[in-house]
Amino acid sequence: MSLSRILIEPVVREALLEDLGRAGDITTDAIIPAGTRMSAAIVARKAGRLAGIDVAALAFELLDPAVGIDVLRTDGADVAAGETVLTVDGTARAILSAERTALNFLCRLSGIATATRTLVEIVHGTGVAIACTRKTTPNLRVLEKYAVRAGGGKNHRFGLDDAVLIKDNHIAAAGGVRVAIERARAGVGHLVKIEIEVDDLAQLREVLETGGVDAVLLDNMSPAQLREAVGMAKGRLVLEASGSLTPEKLREIAETGIDVASSGWITHSAPALDFGLDFRS
Amino acid sequence: MSLSRILIEPVVREALLEDLGRAGDITTDAIIPAGTRMSAAIVARKAGRLAGIDVAALAFELLDPAVGIDVLRTDGADVAAGETVLTVDGTARAILSAERTALNFLCRLSGIATATRTLVEIVHGTGVAIACTRKTTPNLRVLEKYAVRAGGGKNHRFGLDDAVLIKDNHIAAAGGVRVAIERARAGVGHLVKIEIEVDDLAQLREVLETGGVDAVLLDNMSPAQLREAVGMAKGRLVLEASGSLTPEKLREIAETGIDVASSGWITHSAPALDFGLDFRS
Amino acid sequence: MSLSRILIEPVVREALLEDLGRAGDITTDAIIPAGTRMSAAIVARKAGRLAGIDVAALAFELLDPAVGIDVLRTDGADVAAGETVLTVDGTARAILSAERTALNFLCRLSGIATATRTLVEIVHGTGVAIACTRKTTPNLRVLEKYAVRAGGGKNHRFGLDDAVLIKDNHIAAAGGVRVAIERARAGVGHLVKIEIEVDDLAQLREVLETGGVDAVLLDNMSPAQLREAVGMAKGRLVLEASGSLTPEKLREIAETGIDVASSGWITHSAPALDFGLDFRS
Amino acid sequence: MSLSRILIEPVVREALLEDLGRAGDITTDAIIPAGTRMSAAIVARKAGRLAGIDVAALAFELLDPAVGIDVLRTDGADVAAGETVLTVDGTARAILSAERTALNFLCRLSGIATATRTLVEIVHGTGVAIACTRKTTPNLRVLEKYAVRAGGGKNHRFGLDDAVLIKDNHIAAAGGVRVAIERARAGVGHLVKIEIEVDDLAQLREVLETGGVDAVLLDNMSPAQLREAVGMAKGRLVLEASGSLTPEKLREIAETGIDVASSGWITHSAPALDFGLDFRS
Amino acid sequence: MSLSRILIEPVVREALLEDLGRAGDITTDAIIPAGTRMSAAIVARKAGRLAGIDVAALAFELLDPAVGIDVLRTDGADVAAGETVLTVDGTARAILSAERTALNFLCRLSGIATATRTLVEIVHGTGVAIACTRKTTPNLRVLEKYAVRAGGGKNHRFGLDDAVLIKDNHIAAAGGVRVAIERARAGVGHLVKIEIEVDDLAQLREVLETGGVDAVLLDNMSPAQLREAVGMAKGRLVLEASGSLTPEKLREIAETGIDVASSGWITHSAPALDFGLDFRS
Amino acid sequence: MSLSRILIEPVVREALLEDLGRAGDITTDAIIPAGTRMSAAIVARKAGRLAGIDVAALAFELLDPAVGIDVLRTDGADVAAGETVLTVDGTARAILSAERTALNFLCRLSGIATATRTLVEIVHGTGVAIACTRKTTPNLRVLEKYAVRAGGGKNHRFGLDDAVLIKDNHIAAAGGVRVAIERARAGVGHLVKIEIEVDDLAQLREVLETGGVDAVLLDNMSPAQLREAVGMAKGRLVLEASGSLTPEKLREIAETGIDVASSGWITHSAPALDFGLDFRS
Repeated sequence: MSLSRILIEPVVREALLEDLGRAGDITTDAIIPAGTRMSAAIVARKAGRLAGIDVAALAFELLDPAVGIDVLRTDGADVAAGETVLTVDGTARAILSAERTALNFLCRLSGIATATRTLVEIVHGTGVAIACTRKTTPNLRVLEKYAVRAGGGKNHRFGLDDAVLIKDNHIAAAGGVRVAIERARAGVGHLVKIEIEVDDLAQLREVLETGGVDAVLLDNMSPAQLREAVGMAKGRLVLEASGSLTPEKLREIAETGIDVASSGWITHSAPALDFGLDFRS
Repeated sequence: MSLSRILIEPVVREALLEDLGRAGDITTDAIIPAGTRMSAAIVARKAGRLAGIDVAALAFELLDPAVGIDVLRTDGADVAAGETVLTVDGTARAILSAERTALNFLCRLSGIATATRTLVEIVHGTGVAIACTRKTTPNLRVLEKYAVRAGGGKNHRFGLDDAVLIKDNHIAAAGGVRVAIERARAGVGHLVKIEIEVDDLAQLREVLETGGVDAVLLDNMSPAQLREAVGMAKGRLVLEASGSLTPEKLREIAETGIDVASSGWITHSAPALDFGLDFRS
Repeated sequence: MSLSRILIEPVVREALLEDLGRAGDITTDAIIPAGTRMSAAIVARKAGRLAGIDVAALAFELLDPAVGIDVLRTDGADVAAGETVLTVDGTARAILSAERTALNFLCRLSGIATATRTLVEIVHGTGVAIACTRKTTPNLRVLEKYAVRAGGGKNHRFGLDDAVLIKDNHIAAAGGVRVAIERARAGVGHLVKIEIEVDDLAQLREVLETGGVDAVLLDNMSPAQLREAVGMAKGRLVLEASGSLTPEKLREIAETGIDVASSGWITHSAPALDFGLDFRS
Repeated sequence: MSLSRILIEPVVREALLEDLGRAGDITTDAIIPAGTRMSAAIVARKAGRLAGIDVAALAFELLDPAVGIDVLRTDGADVAAGETVLTVDGTARAILSAERTALNFLCRLSGIATATRTLVEIVHGTGVAIACTRKTTPNLRVLEKYAVRAGGGKNHRFGLDDAVLIKDNHIAAAGGVRVAIERARAGVGHLVKIEIEVDDLAQLREVLETGGVDAVLLDNMSPAQLREAVGMAKGRLVLEASGSLTPEKLREIAETGIDVASSGWITHSAPALDFGLDFRS
Repeated sequence: MSLSRILIEPVVREALLEDLGRAGDITTDAIIPAGTRMSAAIVARKAGRLAGIDVAALAFELLDPAVGIDVLRTDGADVAAGETVLTVDGTARAILSAERTALNFLCRLSGIATATRTLVEIVHGTGVAIACTRKTTPNLRVLEKYAVRAGGGKNHRFGLDDAVLIKDNHIAAAGGVRVAIERARAGVGHLVKIEIEVDDLAQLREVLETGGVDAVLLDNMSPAQLREAVGMAKGRLVLEASGSLTPEKLREIAETGIDVASSGWITHSAPALDFGLDFRS
Repeated sequence: MSLSRILIEPVVREALLEDLGRAGDITTDAIIPAGTRMSAAIVARKAGRLAGIDVAALAFELLDPAVGIDVLRTDGADVAAGETVLTVDGTARAILSAERTALNFLCRLSGIATATRTLVEIVHGTGVAIACTRKTTPNLRVLEKYAVRAGGGKNHRFGLDDAVLIKDNHIAAAGGVRVAIERARAGVGHLVKIEIEVDDLAQLREVLETGGVDAVLLDNMSPAQLREAVGMAKGRLVLEASGSLTPEKLREIAETGIDVASSGWITHSAPALDFGLDFRS
């Protein structure tokens, strides 16, 4: 797994500049002579799923293009506590100045991948996909959606423009499910999918009768309702369940026959996975 | 509390554009007529400490400068579950298209403020300040440090350039505590503070003998060690304790007489505080 | 029809600065006193379909926020030669300096809308949609895709990331149609459509047997082949015909029963529609 | 012929990012393994004048700095249908993801060069130069003016700031030709040329009497009028004819003795020249 | 005199953000309550020529759009020591935070205008124009060239692209004056002027024989040589003298009959003109 | 001495683009063939302190990454008139096009370093540090503060956010010295220093009684007052003198026992140090 460098370089460069500020790393510049070289390793402090190793590597490269980097584990790998995932050799100044930025990316993205993996494991064997939402950190969506994939999850919409998602207010403003769907269908091209959020099974019935929809978001429904929805839909469209899901509840929901369970928690509240930089010699 | 608009507008604008993508909100544009007006409220789903209300308001304003916004609670306030913190009136398109961006900022920043407040309450009465670290989300540091202040915490360095923090590697590269401090002192102006991280009390002693330092970071020390450090320092410099702190451990540490306890957790792993947008009429 | 200002302002601002260069409009600044006011009208020199009127208006507003603009015809309207589509009152300097930028946008976008309308009229009554491609002017895709919609056309993918389009090389690299489709299906979420390009009907058969595809791009096929493809597909997926289409050929193709005909010509080679700025008083 | 890389890299990078969007080339990333290598050639589908070959090459390089590129024909060359102009070897992902962006630049710029060459050939032997205008695509002026030069044409002003062009409205606002010229002359330095647009020969006479002007734009004049203008000017200043010029009319005008004929059509309405990317083994 | 806001806002905004850094004006934010209002005046501490008053005003406006500003003297005016040039009323925070940025622009630009005025006065009555060079502060050229105009000077080239200036190395690389001029003439359009630098009168003779040149730069010539050059040129092209000019030498040179004297000193070494912000009530 | 490339590349790139404009170096492109190579040297025309040599080198590298550069003297060195500080070999076009930008940086920064060195020499032996202010050129502060260090000076605040500086207006708005200091102390973290400006010794006494302050700015005080201030402060905080300082006055002030003397002149009015580019063979 990896992301094209042209997509991630701007955000990594901006993060380095955020940390360097106007005057740069005044501690390192004052104490460490320019020519000093150093060898270091990024080590997992806890076990989890890796995501962002190339992003971390890029932080060092942007400060010292001549740095030598050895990526030992790639994104999507499960790492053990104490495991080295990357080694870096180069000027001490570049390594010390990039350290925090590299780790901030790696810890956050691996935290998301690890949280996603946890949910994926809960639904293991049911055929249900775990999907993320748009509840991501502002201006880091590309990286966080990537981390979800590294955790074994699937991506929902990347934004407001790549798929239609009709919600309550759209239905209310349109004056009903049918009109809302028709307007959406007329407004977009043949390569845009349409999903609609429904609150109850009566709305689901209306959606099924109207047609022209690719997926339905069943918000906060009970396992019993979800099971009934599966029976009604008969595989004609994708069924997605959402809502605050505890582990036990998630497994029960996954066994109802729905296709996708989506979670905002994996991006907005996943705790960071701890990594550190250990220096050698 | 508030942040200057010139500082936050670029990040909010970038976040809106991240969500709008190339084609904009295709669902809303297809279904909601341009002239439709709407009234809505941001409501806390859980109790916590508010941060980011002006950022959320700005998201709506950037999509519709004529929007009417009423900020009911300001940053730093404690809000109850169900409490309305902001109302917005304007074009339905602008409100619906800005909704997720506004909430993403508000939930994350209030999550940080709430986590900070929790730690601040634990140390209540000890005189110890809770400080953040540089373990922040890439490119959101200004906002996250602000949220820490909204939670009652204090800010540590904003970056590598506004204070000196001498760590193991700097000491090792310099060949000792004394040389490292002297190089740092010689390298910066009279308005830059110098902090040094020490691993044991012998190092602390060397620091005290050398002088020229404003603060010491005591990493992962036991309450007993911290107490001894307090006795050694005799108020001549600021003592900061850091390390993974459980609530019980934090209280015990705070009672040792140190000045500052710093936590990465309040920024890198604080769960989001849940807010939603409720539509009216 | 309209585009959100937050999406178009950066490109209009950049275009004004491209024309103003370093020193600004040296002719106007030297000759016209700062306070001079002017009234002018944008007039169609030829008949066609309007697109970009808000973009043109924004060019004037960005140079003089106090300018008075009256938009007489909105995007998507058919205008006659000699028809006034917008009037503007304000400082003469702002109007003269923004004139060329405003017209450059309007002429290009209306040219695309007009070309699209021509194709839409040719297929009138067949139920076929005219779609654009990614053969757009670099860095103007959002505006050009919008102009296609103003011309009555539909948008194909906005980029490489909002839908899957499997081509020859993907099939060859994967080792066959089935593997390519399976990899694509596994790689994307449930809100991403998949289209595949086929060269002959044997490939189409393989696609139909494999399933999991939303649309097929039939490249450079004869009407007879297209008709046969329609019979094979039986409405199970969207059929899109592409290739250099003359008007006669387009009508014949549209009558085969396919769903979409896509054209690069409407964006990469549509001649500009001529508009001018007439000054009054 | 070539353009400095520092000038074109930003626009090519922006165009790649426009196409890659947030998630990148999801088709290629899902189907083509990261290590797969590929060899391909850009081939002219029609005969014409080449422009933009370095721009196309840069698109590939920006996605894969290690790509091997062989530029077989340089800008300004006349290419035959079927002729290979560039070969590229590198990672299949980079080549496939950059393909459309590379071709979009090359087809547009070569279209402009080809259109320019057509006009240049029409005036062959008359000594008349074909010049472009400011009727260029927003934010692509540098590249389009370069393509005009590749087609054998000359550049008119690059913007509002590098030469003075006095038009009707300037004359009207100033209260006459003489005042307008005097204000312009007083307002600019000794390295800025002044051109003035005249509607009839009486105005030309006034210009000649006033002096201080380097060139005159004779708008929409008949060959007879132009011939008379040539007689009046006696080589004391540059005479430029403009207006919608058909090929026959252009030749006739070129034979009147004027110096420059300018055309907006070569930039605003030139059809793209077709190029394709052919893959090899 | 004034500059279009669209040209100067980016540089003023960038300068404010440079001063505000990440955390903003921490002194003012801590001490001055948000609602406090203030009245202040920008006062000249020394006499000189004013330039940049609108730039200074914009600094305040960007921090507080509701600020009330009264511009008492406009650019190009001669101000006395102690004279108030601008008053500002608004939030104390905005005024205090923008103060330094506003003054930094005003002092520098007025310093340049004042230095220019000094040279202009020295050559008074000779008809010689004082021109600037490209020896300007990086990224402030537009503003500094504007300040030269405010000082009564004229602008030389704004960059490498708006006029040709042939120097020694160009002549050497071309193999002679004639070839260099011919290549330049062939390479640019009819609205670009050509100047050539000559070291001695023999070269000037060659230039005059070749023709096709608009101006000649006579570098470091004595008054006697300049006088001879004037005799040779007979008004057929513009003669510009350059070189480090003391006041006495400048007057003597101006009296030789040349047209333009250019000075790098007025931009690269002009001392700032002192202004301060005085607070009232 | 050196600055991290990631910090200076954006400003150097922007400066090159400012000079290249839209069309690039039209003189060089027209006259010098693309393949021509050249060798040149940057030579000091006057003696002074060097600053910005890496910035100058970067200007050449950004136009031709293959250029060969030999830096003969590093920043902070004292150079003699006629001394070569850098040689460059590469394409003639790159060298000629970057020449002015490279020199503009070098002359300005070396001018600042030289001015700083002059003041440093005046106070030699007194133990007083020469510090800069925030009176820097807009958007060049990082480079100018670096040049001050190259001249042997120390940096004052980099902006409004890295240290507290309490001035008259803050004291007035707070209602007194004590309140102002208390608010500042409460508003910032433990790594931020606080300085306060005082007008007389009574204020200094109040500051000393209040405590909690790291430094005091003594504005425009006489040597006698300064001496008294030194006696009052007894080394408990840093004493900084400021005000327009002539050389004689500066020495006298430095001998009073204060710690720091700050000067705006070294950044806002230092004359450029002259360097030229000499071509070889």
